[in-house]
Amino acid sequence: MQPNGIVAAMSSRRAWTDPECPVARTVDLVGDRWSLLLVRDALEGPRRFSEFQRNLGVAKNILAARLKALVEAGILRVAIDADRTRAGYELTDRGVDLFAIIVGLRQWGERYAFADGEPHSVLVDDETGRPVGRVELRDEDGRTPTPQNSHVRRVGTEST
Amino acid sequence: MQPNGIVAAMSSRRAWTDPECPVARTVDLVGDRWSLLLVRDALEGPRRFSEFQRNLGVAKNILAARLKALVEAGILRVAIDADRTRAGYELTDRGVDLFAIIVGLRQWGERYAFADGEPHSVLVDDETGRPVGRVELRDEDGRTPTPQNSHVRRVGTEST
Repeated sequence: MQPNGIVAAMSSRRAWTDPECPVARTVDLVGDRWSLLLVRDALEGPRRFSEFQRNLGVAKNILAARLKALVEAGILRVAIDADRTRAGYELTDRGVDLFAIIVGLRQWGERYAFADGEPHSVLVDDETGRPVGRVELRDEDGRTPTPQNSHVRRVGTEST
Repeated sequence: MQPNGIVAAMSSRRAWTDPECPVARTVDLVGDRWSLLLVRDALEGPRRFSEFQRNLGVAKNILAARLKALVEAGILRVAIDADRTRAGYELTDRGVDLFAIIVGLRQWGERYAFADGEPHSVLVDDETGRPVGRVELRDEDGRTPTPQNSHVRRVGTEST
């Protein structure tokens, strides 16, 4: 599905909350508890409906609605096994590209939502076997954008 | 509020969706449309209730509930003006630390939720006046974690 496809799908479903803001459009597509946790789980590989359901304990009708919306948004697709049976749901490339957001949620949670020493899952580097260290954002020039060194320029605002 | 404070607040309110997963704890605290957009707006500076309401068009009872929850989670606090009147809500340090997640949502939206040439707001570097380029995650060693070079190790799993 191309970006135009998402735009068309959203237009037919409901209006964007804030059409000119990329943050808001992404939030409209995946910004709810179950969708974000479905993406988290699917990052580990294809998952069947029953696996999502068992892992999350979410009601089946809600799960079905979220999976349908994520497929429509081009984030998940139905995976087909070699014997042509449905293997479950897997992330598309654009779905996999939500990884940075999931890592951001993970690291914020590790820093602020756990008491010292309280056990939690960790993201581990396959090569070193060690937990992935704290990550920062870096643009192509090696700069780290922060709320202090950047600002949002709205549509129709010529000057910065 | 310390991490223990969040844990206590959540325990008294409801159970965590998935207590051992930092992604899920963060999602429990901010993983809904309005909370993420409130954080987005507050990254630009303190905001009054009426400003949030006008900008988002969210129902007042929902807005009040979200603001209360974000204050309880230690993400927003009430800002007090020099004349000791309430200036509105501002992000705490831990709230500002959600910036990387908001940038992730923004850049994903820019890539996938807009048609070519469709106008949208942009994050601009204050110094250069140019849009912030595509960001990547970098850990302290300069490595970029990806779904291909990392995996999640759950609590109680000794081996990686």
